Amino acid sequence: MSDSHELAVRLIGELTRRRLTIAVAESLTGGLVVAELVSVPGASAVVRGAVVAYATELKTSLLGVDADLLAERSPIDPEVARQMAEGVRQRLGHDGAPADIGLATTGVAGPDTQDGHPVGEVWIGVAFGGAVTAHGLRLKGDRASIRSASVSESLARVLELLPE
Amino acid sequence: MSDSHELAVRLIGELTRRRLTIAVAESLTGGLVVAELVSVPGASAVVRGAVVAYATELKTSLLGVDADLLAERSPIDPEVARQMAEGVRQRLGHDGAPADIGLATTGVAGPDTQDGHPVGEVWIGVAFGGAVTAHGLRLKGDRASIRSASVSESLARVLELLPE
Repeated sequence: MSDSHELAVRLIGELTRRRLTIAVAESLTGGLVVAELVSVPGASAVVRGAVVAYATELKTSLLGVDADLLAERSPIDPEVARQMAEGVRQRLGHDGAPADIGLATTGVAGPDTQDGHPVGEVWIGVAFGGAVTAHGLRLKGDRASIRSASVSESLARVLELLPE
Repeated sequence: MSDSHELAVRLIGELTRRRLTIAVAESLTGGLVVAELVSVPGASAVVRGAVVAYATELKTSLLGVDADLLAERSPIDPEVARQMAEGVRQRLGHDGAPADIGLATTGVAGPDTQDGHPVGEVWIGVAFGGAVTAHGLRLKGDRASIRSASVSESLARVLELLPE
């Protein structure tokens, strides 16, 4: 059982116990975060779904990320991660209310640098309650290991933020 | 290398050669289809992104699936798969045009039956050119193997449809 699967099992358990829902916006992880969450039986009670905004302009059209911000700073940016997290929480809510938690990933999986940002630069955004935070990572390894570590780190960041 | 990874490598190669784009709408596969596609280097030239509409009402709000159809027939239905495929192609396009291919999955991964449909009943929708088709599967196995087989089958269905 992988590290990220263990984290997903813990997170689904904690969300279920607290009756909190989660929605995910993914760029470099390309669906791996939501796939890991949905692999846990019972996930349907807490996982709303995800937007994989792989093409840059979809971050604006599907998630509401500021187009000027994307043009000025590129998608590899903490504020982009925050806007993705808040955007997916709003758009994948239920009964007119946002999802309780929005989780977002953006970064460079490689093999090439992107917009001047190095391979392994990753930003994770988490929207929960009144706060929207961004967490920066500098990962090493190939495309698969950078994506895999990004999944584990993003699930860990949400678990950290949950109150006791 | 898994069967689905080999299929993803072939599909990204074929789409790149033909300059065709693809967008994915996932329910029971929960992000695994797009994650497999994006695992292939060079995917960013042809993969637009994906909507993981895990909660039923998101199939309407994010993909435009008819709400009455969902209520009457449940999400486990060939017409739902077709509307998901057409909806994601329209919504994840570029420069005002739809993506060239829309691929959708909906079905029952288990462990429980859903809306009277048995575990392993899966529908794959493919929108390409003027046609939107649905392919039914009856899969056996546990949650993970049903999802994994659904990924392989969905990639295979797109490969089959590409003209020589």
